[in-house]
Amino acid sequence: MFEMEDGQFQLVYNILSFSLASMMSTTLFLWMRAPCVANRYQSAVIISGLVTFIAAYHYMRIFNSWTEGYLYTTASENPKLTGVPFNDAYRYMDWLLTVPLLLIEIILVMKLDEAESTSLCQSLGLSSAMMIVLGYPGELIVSGNLGTRWQYWGMAMLPFMYIVYTLLVGLSDATEAEEDRDIKALIERAQRVTVVSWLTYPVVYVFPMMGFAGSHAVVAIQVGYCVSDIISKCGVGLIIYTITKAKSDKEKEC
Amino acid sequence: MFEMEDGQFQLVYNILSFSLASMMSTTLFLWMRAPCVANRYQSAVIISGLVTFIAAYHYMRIFNSWTEGYLYTTASENPKLTGVPFNDAYRYMDWLLTVPLLLIEIILVMKLDEAESTSLCQSLGLSSAMMIVLGYPGELIVSGNLGTRWQYWGMAMLPFMYIVYTLLVGLSDATEAEEDRDIKALIERAQRVTVVSWLTYPVVYVFPMMGFAGSHAVVAIQVGYCVSDIISKCGVGLIIYTITKAKSDKEKEC
Repeated sequence: MFEMEDGQFQLVYNILSFSLASMMSTTLFLWMRAPCVANRYQSAVIISGLVTFIAAYHYMRIFNSWTEGYLYTTASENPKLTGVPFNDAYRYMDWLLTVPLLLIEIILVMKLDEAESTSLCQSLGLSSAMMIVLGYPGELIVSGNLGTRWQYWGMAMLPFMYIVYTLLVGLSDATEAEEDRDIKALIERAQRVTVVSWLTYPVVYVFPMMGFAGSHAVVAIQVGYCVSDIISKCGVGLIIYTITKAKSDKEKEC
Repeated sequence: MFEMEDGQFQLVYNILSFSLASMMSTTLFLWMRAPCVANRYQSAVIISGLVTFIAAYHYMRIFNSWTEGYLYTTASENPKLTGVPFNDAYRYMDWLLTVPLLLIEIILVMKLDEAESTSLCQSLGLSSAMMIVLGYPGELIVSGNLGTRWQYWGMAMLPFMYIVYTLLVGLSDATEAEEDRDIKALIERAQRVTVVSWLTYPVVYVFPMMGFAGSHAVVAIQVGYCVSDIISKCGVGLIIYTITKAKSDKEKEC
């Protein structure tokens, strides 16, 4: 835990609240719109809403943990440490649940037969769990022995690269199989937004190695992960909804 | 943070609670009525409810932040400062999410082809985000160097004028394209109420320059923004519902 200046504390506080509001409202929108897409795509929309729901829950916890770590008094403009540790493990608990679901929601809107879908869900789910478990121990080292942080980063990058490769290259056949040009473009966009927003996570992870130290590292990491989460969860979720809506309209089932 | 007299503290406290109640009840009404408008208009009604939902969340936070900033004791009739800063950034976080959605809900009920809708949503969404980001730094200056507050006000007014111009002039063709006279009148009312209620925000913003100082400036700003928010979010949301209901009834789909 590091001492924070008023402005630093407020920045993290506000961006955590903003992320919470984004997650809650995306969840409600997706769940309210789910009945309006064709039956076969409803799971994908509901799961997209689950991802933002789980994230909303964790952002509420992270927000509370942040405010409990610091205390304002009339004695100083800056908050004081209370001794209650800020619990960043919530993010990893969140990712352990939401990252496999995020991958499943993309697979569910693609033209794949059931055997392919199942095997992809398993291999991507497993590798994303490995990626998160391998990344976590390094996340605990914000300052000091950053070499160890690099090691965990490197190990987590292996399953990460496999996932990105599968999303971009492995699924290209299924994307090509879409006849409708607009839908194909939307699926490609979902894949691209996912990959680009995911690539920001390993960048945020190395902020402490890029010169951010102490409280600055904590602030940069929190802001960075919030932005990445909003794009990869709310942004991708809404694209998934647009894809399922377009597919449903085309099939005239709704 | 300024010392508040009992009456001042209570006025802000009550109007924040009133705004919270208005936002929550409008949200529930809109979401419960959404299934009763034609499919194609449901998004507009659901988004109108999302706007008031996001505002309700932020009013709960603003209310809590207000009560945490002051403490009543038996020693005095007036509350004392606790040292916890009142966080007015919640309003800007709120607007960053709700203002683009408010514009989208108006565009969604108009007769526009999809390409026009998309390009309008993008340009209005972007300019509203710019307006809010440019306005925020000035909002932090309640007393002291008000010249700087004027500068940010002036910068934020540029995208603001563009939005107002687009709503009133740019969209007039689409409004004229409505055949039904009643529906046309309703859309014109939604545009007018939006523009008029929006015009109150830059007026509230300059309250500190109009002679309100210290605690009086804070009270005037809080009361002013609450009134503007209720009209632009609850009022416009309910007009949007009326429009979609009238359009649906005409198309006899519900």
